Amino acid sequence: MKSKALGPMPTGYSAIDGELAIGGHTASALVAEAGRTPLFVYSRDHLNARMAQLRAVLPSRIGVNYAIKANPHPDVLRHMQPLVDGFDIASSGELVMAQNAGLDPARISFAGPGKRDDELEAAIAAGVTLNCESEGEANRSLTIGQRIGKAPRMAIRVNPSFELKGSGMKMGGGAKPFGVDADRVPALAKQIMAEGAEWRGLHIFTGSQALNADAIIEAQGNVLDLAAELGAQIGTSLPKLNMGGGFGIPYFPKEEALDLPAVGAALHRRVADLPPELAETELCLELGRYLVGEAGVYLCRVIDRKDSHGTTYLVTDGGLHHQLAASGNFGTVVRRNYPVAIANKFDAEPDDIVNVVGCLCTPLDRLADLAHLPRGDVGDLVAVFCAGAYGATASPAAFLGHGPAAEILV
Amino acid sequence: MKSKALGPMPTGYSAIDGELAIGGHTASALVAEAGRTPLFVYSRDHLNARMAQLRAVLPSRIGVNYAIKANPHPDVLRHMQPLVDGFDIASSGELVMAQNAGLDPARISFAGPGKRDDELEAAIAAGVTLNCESEGEANRSLTIGQRIGKAPRMAIRVNPSFELKGSGMKMGGGAKPFGVDADRVPALAKQIMAEGAEWRGLHIFTGSQALNADAIIEAQGNVLDLAAELGAQIGTSLPKLNMGGGFGIPYFPKEEALDLPAVGAALHRRVADLPPELAETELCLELGRYLVGEAGVYLCRVIDRKDSHGTTYLVTDGGLHHQLAASGNFGTVVRRNYPVAIANKFDAEPDDIVNVVGCLCTPLDRLADLAHLPRGDVGDLVAVFCAGAYGATASPAAFLGHGPAAEILV
Repeated sequence: MKSKALGPMPTGYSAIDGELAIGGHTASALVAEAGRTPLFVYSRDHLNARMAQLRAVLPSRIGVNYAIKANPHPDVLRHMQPLVDGFDIASSGELVMAQNAGLDPARISFAGPGKRDDELEAAIAAGVTLNCESEGEANRSLTIGQRIGKAPRMAIRVNPSFELKGSGMKMGGGAKPFGVDADRVPALAKQIMAEGAEWRGLHIFTGSQALNADAIIEAQGNVLDLAAELGAQIGTSLPKLNMGGGFGIPYFPKEEALDLPAVGAALHRRVADLPPELAETELCLELGRYLVGEAGVYLCRVIDRKDSHGTTYLVTDGGLHHQLAASGNFGTVVRRNYPVAIANKFDAEPDDIVNVVGCLCTPLDRLADLAHLPRGDVGDLVAVFCAGAYGATASPAAFLGHGPAAEILV
Repeated sequence: MKSKALGPMPTGYSAIDGELAIGGHTASALVAEAGRTPLFVYSRDHLNARMAQLRAVLPSRIGVNYAIKANPHPDVLRHMQPLVDGFDIASSGELVMAQNAGLDPARISFAGPGKRDDELEAAIAAGVTLNCESEGEANRSLTIGQRIGKAPRMAIRVNPSFELKGSGMKMGGGAKPFGVDADRVPALAKQIMAEGAEWRGLHIFTGSQALNADAIIEAQGNVLDLAAELGAQIGTSLPKLNMGGGFGIPYFPKEEALDLPAVGAALHRRVADLPPELAETELCLELGRYLVGEAGVYLCRVIDRKDSHGTTYLVTDGGLHHQLAASGNFGTVVRRNYPVAIANKFDAEPDDIVNVVGCLCTPLDRLADLAHLPRGDVGDLVAVFCAGAYGATASPAAFLGHGPAAEILV
């Protein structure tokens, strides 16, 4: 039987006593500490290393925001606070998480196409910057600000006419539910300022999960050009520009890590030659997956090893209720394998070809198809990598009554 | 702009004062009662009607089990208790839900390929029937039964060599993680009986979400043939046979309802001519989606109506965090529209073409593409039908911090 390739293992994971180690602890020790599987482990070392890589290549003039929807675990938020320059939220629920983690509301901006009035009010009251997604939302925000006697801090999310090429999720180019079409932005910006809001500039998001540095460099250039053009039309210096993110991580076979130094070098060139409209503008990137995705590992335990018509299945206590994207059921058309390992046999030679599945009673619940791995038996631990972003909170934890996984930061 | 077709509206929904009514209450009254949107409404009338349709066509000898994973809401479970003959669970979490709803454990069976030891113990202690998925799981169950001094009630889940043709989810045919390959079942059954378990027969599940009556009739015939053959090889009368389910409901354009009377007539013919091995066997179907799917409506509110490059978007406070399947991101390759309506303009003529989207900041969050609907404005209610099964619990409720929808049974 021929195996199917696994996704590329993220860097920074090695073995202690033959076991996968995360933050200096073996997988089995981490499971013992958490008291159960399935378990998401998030690594401080990885979070720190990724931020250090970014700071090393980015111009100091460009800040880094963390989009907390990628992973809003309270310990992750607290860890990220001193590392990043700001936070992006997508709901009032995330505002509460941010506040509970002690994040400064003045460093938070709020994007999302369907903000309810109560969400706008909570954000305005807290002093969070609203990335307005439409004229209607801007008007509701101004009305609420007047009612509660507080000038809203308002930026405009722009729907640009270009997109981030090759991105997993296109967020710009053509008709979109996100933001305000670029040609209507200047009028709205003038209205917002005229009605007494605190003008906070622009948010231009073009896509996500891109691995091609040239595409990101091109999109960032277009974003800066568009921001300068809109700034000129608006007629005042832009206080801030959220340039979006889009930096991807490799999940699947043949994918390669983003050439971050190339992106950084291009940004240095651009920042050295900014047009006058952006000379005073605070610039930032908004990153989620890129900051936390590779820092997370999902550990589950083999419950059964079984044969069916010559195919071997490792049935685990994990599954798509915690790792929907790894099962191939979230935003992907053709299922491919994430990087997966037998955690407690991490440096053993692969000598077995198995299907790793979850515990759910559905054929959708696949963690790895025809994976070439060291032999896994009942009680062994399976590790699914790239689990730090859009894992625990982007999966149907209540499905079939299994409930959420444990989560720890080490 | 050309519209895209919507899925077929389930029967039994009509208007009161121009509004969609469920169980005699208008959508806006239901939202007022629940206190918020998004809201799942489940209809007692629909649940009752569907069970009455089934009882009318099925031989009285064939029972109906409810697979609670389709919708484990406590009020739904309590409502279904007197209507059905048994319940199927897929985890110890669902066992707790069943027990909290007062369901009789003697009427419950437990299937699922990754049952942990603690789950097996809870089920054995409660007197639930285990549908054993492998020799390894059977041995663990026997060991646990001995340890806690209680004979486990054990059936075997069979991996049949045939499948339910045209089903949305194939659960049989070839190598599968579910059940025991048919040729190994007799030996395992004899071992189970020899080791003192209470022998409860077979569970043969061949697929789900099939709309073709001929395919279901053929699969049911194959199931009865296989059960008789395995019964003969095992050498004792089969106490029970769970024949599986697979009855689908139409979600998408051009899909038509299952011809239930045809399935019932075929079962009458088969039951009148059962082989001796099945003469004393308790027979049941296991249905989930078919019982509850069309009884549920998901209501969300329009937060924004916006234009982008000539395309109109209705942005709602709902989305894929409650209705993942309707967004096209769960087990589907090509996205198609569910049946959707403007609930408070339910009998108005369609005169608008809009994209209905959720509030999440991702292009995956689509509830209807290019839908031909009466004009929807801010404050209007959008209804997504066929929301009674695999909605609330099969969606990532924690995604982007929005939290779960409200749910009521009326």
